[in-house]
Amino acid sequence: MREGRNPIIALLTDFGLEDAYVGTMKGVIYNINPSAQLVDICHNITAHSIQQASFALSSSYKYFPEGTIYLVVVDPGVGGSRRAIILKTPQYLFVAPDNGVLSFIAEEECEEVVEITNASYFLKDVSNTFHGRDVFAPVAAHLSLGINIYNFGPRLEDIERFTLSSPHILPNGDIIGRIVYIDRFGNLITNISSEILSLYSSERVVIEIRGIKIYNISSSYSSVSKGEPVALIGSSGNLEIAVNCDRADRVLRAGIDEEVKVYLS
Amino acid sequence: MREGRNPIIALLTDFGLEDAYVGTMKGVIYNINPSAQLVDICHNITAHSIQQASFALSSSYKYFPEGTIYLVVVDPGVGGSRRAIILKTPQYLFVAPDNGVLSFIAEEECEEVVEITNASYFLKDVSNTFHGRDVFAPVAAHLSLGINIYNFGPRLEDIERFTLSSPHILPNGDIIGRIVYIDRFGNLITNISSEILSLYSSERVVIEIRGIKIYNISSSYSSVSKGEPVALIGSSGNLEIAVNCDRADRVLRAGIDEEVKVYLS
Amino acid sequence: MREGRNPIIALLTDFGLEDAYVGTMKGVIYNINPSAQLVDICHNITAHSIQQASFALSSSYKYFPEGTIYLVVVDPGVGGSRRAIILKTPQYLFVAPDNGVLSFIAEEECEEVVEITNASYFLKDVSNTFHGRDVFAPVAAHLSLGINIYNFGPRLEDIERFTLSSPHILPNGDIIGRIVYIDRFGNLITNISSEILSLYSSERVVIEIRGIKIYNISSSYSSVSKGEPVALIGSSGNLEIAVNCDRADRVLRAGIDEEVKVYLS
Repeated sequence: MREGRNPIIALLTDFGLEDAYVGTMKGVIYNINPSAQLVDICHNITAHSIQQASFALSSSYKYFPEGTIYLVVVDPGVGGSRRAIILKTPQYLFVAPDNGVLSFIAEEECEEVVEITNASYFLKDVSNTFHGRDVFAPVAAHLSLGINIYNFGPRLEDIERFTLSSPHILPNGDIIGRIVYIDRFGNLITNISSEILSLYSSERVVIEIRGIKIYNISSSYSSVSKGEPVALIGSSGNLEIAVNCDRADRVLRAGIDEEVKVYLS
Repeated sequence: MREGRNPIIALLTDFGLEDAYVGTMKGVIYNINPSAQLVDICHNITAHSIQQASFALSSSYKYFPEGTIYLVVVDPGVGGSRRAIILKTPQYLFVAPDNGVLSFIAEEECEEVVEITNASYFLKDVSNTFHGRDVFAPVAAHLSLGINIYNFGPRLEDIERFTLSSPHILPNGDIIGRIVYIDRFGNLITNISSEILSLYSSERVVIEIRGIKIYNISSSYSSVSKGEPVALIGSSGNLEIAVNCDRADRVLRAGIDEEVKVYLS
Repeated sequence: MREGRNPIIALLTDFGLEDAYVGTMKGVIYNINPSAQLVDICHNITAHSIQQASFALSSSYKYFPEGTIYLVVVDPGVGGSRRAIILKTPQYLFVAPDNGVLSFIAEEECEEVVEITNASYFLKDVSNTFHGRDVFAPVAAHLSLGINIYNFGPRLEDIERFTLSSPHILPNGDIIGRIVYIDRFGNLITNISSEILSLYSSERVVIEIRGIKIYNISSSYSSVSKGEPVALIGSSGNLEIAVNCDRADRVLRAGIDEEVKVYLS
C-alpha cells in the first residue's frame, strides 16, 4: 500500500461512455471518499461479456500499484440471485458480481473471498437494475477508506467459475487454439500462451488461420511488409495474429472463436 | 462544501471523445485552478441534443458531493444570441448555455441565476465556435476557486424553458407515455415516473408498446427468461422496458418518442 | 512549472477506449509516480494516423499549464527501427515515437531533442508491440518526477519531419486548400489559416467546395439558417466549413483531402 495515500480505484465496466452511468458511479465514490483516486481501465466491454472483461482485467491488473481496488461491473444478472463479492489477493482487492468474471484470478492467487451482504455500506435505496451505483461503487469507496473486508459480509469458500477456453494439444503435438479477443486495431489475440509456444522450435513453426499459413513468429508488426499477416507474441503474452498497418480481423475475415492451428512444418 | 478541498467540476458535453475538445477544456481549467478535481459525467450526448443532456444530468447530479460545479456544454447556438448562465441550487452550481438544458433543475430547486457577462473570467481571445473552451471552462474554473457568482454578471429573473415531454393521463385512467431515452444496453426509458405508476394496482397493470403487452412490473431484468421483454422501474426512477440479456430497442423495434401505454386489465 | 505540484501528464493516443491499453498505461504511470496528474486529450485518433494526431495536438497543447508533459503514442512502427524521443520547448515536454508526429512543434519552438535509449527507465520486460506501456508511459512518469531529459539518452540534431499539407496560392491570388480534419460534428477544417485569409477582403471573398459557393466568412454557425452551409474561422484558427445544426461532411459529401478554393468575386 502506498503510504499516506488513498489507494487507486480502477474501474472496468460494460456501461459504455454514451450514458451517465460511469459518471454517476464516480459521484457516488467521491461522496463517500472525497480523496479517492479513480482510474478508468475500460468501460466499452461488450454488453454482458464476462469473457471480454476477464481478458481485459487479466491483461492489465498487474500493471497497477499495490493496494489498487478493482471495481469490475459486468453484471447481466443484476437484481437476480447472483452474489456480490470482494476478492483479496496479496496485492489487490477486487469488487465484482460473482458471475465468473474473477475466476482467472481466483485460480492464480486468491487469498480470501467475502460475500458482500452488509447493506450499511450500500446507498440507502438500492435499485434492482444498477448495483454498480448502489452497491459496488459504495463498497469500493468504503474499502478505499481502509475498512476491513470482513466488515462487508461472511467468508465464502468458493466463487463462481467461468471456464476460459484453453487450447487443445493433439497427440501429434499440434496446437488447436482460438481467437479470444480482438482489439481496436483488429489484432487477433489467441488463447495460446507464449509458455506453450516456447515448447516448439520457432524455426519450423507454422501458424494457420482460415487456410492462411504464417511460417514464422515475428518480433514486431513491422517485421513484415505493410498489408501482410504476421504472427507474434502480443503484449498480453499470448500468440497474436496481426496485419502490418491494417486490420487482421477484416483482411483475414476472422472473428472471436475462430480456430488457430500451430504445428511444425 | 467539502472542507479544505477543491469542489468537483463535473463535465457533461456533446463534444464526443473523437477530438481534442474535451481535453482542451481540461487544460484550460488546470491552467486557472491547478488543484481542480475533474469528473466526466458523459461526453457522448447526441450532437445538439438538449433533451438527452437534460435527462443524463437529471439522472446523475444528485449522486455527486455537495458543492459540485456542473459544466454542461451542449450548445447548438454557440456564437449566437443565446445567453450563458450560472444557476445555483442549495447544493450545487451549474454552468451552461441558456438554452433550456437546465430547465428541469430550475423547476425543482433553483435559488439564483446570473447571466455570465464579465469577460475578465473568459480566455483572452473568445472564438465564436468553442465557448466550452473560451467561456464555460474558465468560468467553472474560477467558480472552483471560490469566486462569488455575482462577480460573473447580473441576476436573471428567469431562464429559457424547455418542455420535457410528460405523460398524458386519459379520463379512464390510462397513461399514455413515451420513450425519452435509450441507453447503451438498448433499454427503453419512458417519461412515466414511479410516482405516477404507484397509483395503479401493480397486480392488474398492463404495459403496452408496439402491440406487445407486458402483464407485470418486475423487480429486475432477470425476473424473466433471456430474450423476454420486461417492464420495471429503472435506476432513473422511471418506467423502463428492457429485454433480459438483449436490446429492447432492437427486439421491439422501438425508438425515441415511441408511445407506451399503461392501463389496468 | 507549477510550484510544489506534479506536472500534468496529458495523453494522446490512437489506442481507443474499447480495450484496456490506456488504463494499463495509467497503471504503469501511477506505479512510478503515485502523485501523477493525468489528463486525457484524446484516445480515438484514427489508428496509425500521424496527421490526425498532429492536428489534435497542435490545436490543444497551448491550452495546458506550463510544465505539462505530453505523452503521444500513435506508433505504427512500434518494435521496428523508429526512434523514441523527448522534445523540449520553453514550456513543455513531449514524449513520442520519432515518426513525424511532433514535427510541427519542432518547426515552431523546439529547444532540445533527446533520443530515449536508457532502458533503466523502461519496464523490465519490453514487448515489441506495446511501447506505450513499456517505454513511453514509464519515461513520462519518470519525467514527471523531475528527472532531467539528458538522463534518458543522447541529444539528437534533428527529428523525422512530416510534411503537413499547406495551401497553394496561385499566381492570380486564388487559394487552393484542403480539408485536413473532420470533427465529431462533421465540421470540415481546412489547412487555410486565418493569417492567410486576412490578406483577402472579406466582403468579396468566395469559398468553394464541391461546386458549392459560400459568399461570406461568418462569425458563427448560427449566422446562417439551420441546414445552410457556413464558412468561418474555427476554434483551431483555420478556415472551417460547417452546416448550421447539421453535419457538413454528410450534407456536402466532403471528406479528408477534399479541395477548398478561396477567391475574390
